[in-house]
Amino acid sequence: MAGQGDLKLLGMLESPFVIRVRMALHLKGVSYEYIEQDLSNKGELLLKNNPVHKKVPVLIHNGKPICESLAIVQYVDEVWAATSPSILPANPHERALARFWAAYVDDKFFPAWLGILKAETGEERDKKMSETLPVVEQLETALAQCSNGKAFFSGASVGYLDLAVGCNLLWLDAMRKMFGVVVIDAARTPVLAAWADRFRESDVGKEVLPDADIAVEYAKKIQVYRPASK
Amino acid sequence: MAGQGDLKLLGMLESPFVIRVRMALHLKGVSYEYIEQDLSNKGELLLKNNPVHKKVPVLIHNGKPICESLAIVQYVDEVWAATSPSILPANPHERALARFWAAYVDDKFFPAWLGILKAETGEERDKKMSETLPVVEQLETALAQCSNGKAFFSGASVGYLDLAVGCNLLWLDAMRKMFGVVVIDAARTPVLAAWADRFRESDVGKEVLPDADIAVEYAKKIQVYRPASK
Repeated sequence: MAGQGDLKLLGMLESPFVIRVRMALHLKGVSYEYIEQDLSNKGELLLKNNPVHKKVPVLIHNGKPICESLAIVQYVDEVWAATSPSILPANPHERALARFWAAYVDDKFFPAWLGILKAETGEERDKKMSETLPVVEQLETALAQCSNGKAFFSGASVGYLDLAVGCNLLWLDAMRKMFGVVVIDAARTPVLAAWADRFRESDVGKEVLPDADIAVEYAKKIQVYRPASK
Repeated sequence: MAGQGDLKLLGMLESPFVIRVRMALHLKGVSYEYIEQDLSNKGELLLKNNPVHKKVPVLIHNGKPICESLAIVQYVDEVWAATSPSILPANPHERALARFWAAYVDDKFFPAWLGILKAETGEERDKKMSETLPVVEQLETALAQCSNGKAFFSGASVGYLDLAVGCNLLWLDAMRKMFGVVVIDAARTPVLAAWADRFRESDVGKEVLPDADIAVEYAKKIQVYRPASK
């Protein structure tokens, strides 16, 4: 793409928040240099560009850093506003709904499933799972409210809230493999489960969402998953 | 204002998040019906319009609810985009910075000072105060980064990040009265302290920011403040 300037993304392959930004850049067809970060040994590039939180993702555009995944996705949508598709809806009320639910995903849904991942016993995992289910049911409501019966949260095609929710599928799929837990279950939340299938099959799902095995390997590395037999 | 439609705000006078929305509506010169909520006995109007969080503020525009203060402020800016001033900056990078720091205010600064307010002993209050000071120092950095040497976070006049930070002044001023703590101190964070003085003296500060005494009275009511002599 002509005139896009110098674009670098500091990331970690298994981070849902990094995946979210990669999906936004993919939707806009923007090319960038991806620079994997070692979060156990944070380098100068990360510390200099996100001194406040020292976290990924960080997008560096012509030398200027932008941090926080939802702020980055909106930035990408605004800078490449002339490039289809629009990531946020055009209508202010739909935008407000998308922002409301994206905040819900990060404040409630992400910590809920992270609790399942980090549980140290089967009993604790069951408890965390039971705390997560009402949160997932709210997302089913969100989908009904935002999609107007169309295929995605953002309507006929993938948009802001689809990215916000969809980036979490990597770890939900990995937890299914590791622990047999089904967070988005077709019996309990059929509309959301059908959406998840469509999202995985969408262009951005197929091209950007990594295979669950990379999360399984990472879970072994940080020892939240210790398979009984090796 | 012609054509603005039916506009109601569900609020609580002492809530910084409600004050933030009132400031945005004041900046745009939009009139609305304010409906105080009793959060100790939540009514049907609130439960129906914010069933997810059951919190204020909720803006109801032509019957449609919008929740989460930062989403509401952006909604107000977008719906009344033709009315000066713009609340968010026009430049995408400045918008991203404002969104990044507004999230910092809600995720780090608000819970930090709330810890001071809720401390049950002087010792705990000192501890919470010492945890809050590095957060305030980050806001001093933010101001330097965002204002470009101008009077406000948003430049020459009050904007998004000014509202996001400024709505907290009610409780900072009340805590000074109640406990003698100075969270934004001219010696430690001179740029931010000078900004706070300017913000209090701005139109939106004078017209919308309530007197600290209403927060002091509320603190007595919920018993986080128990003056020794009555």
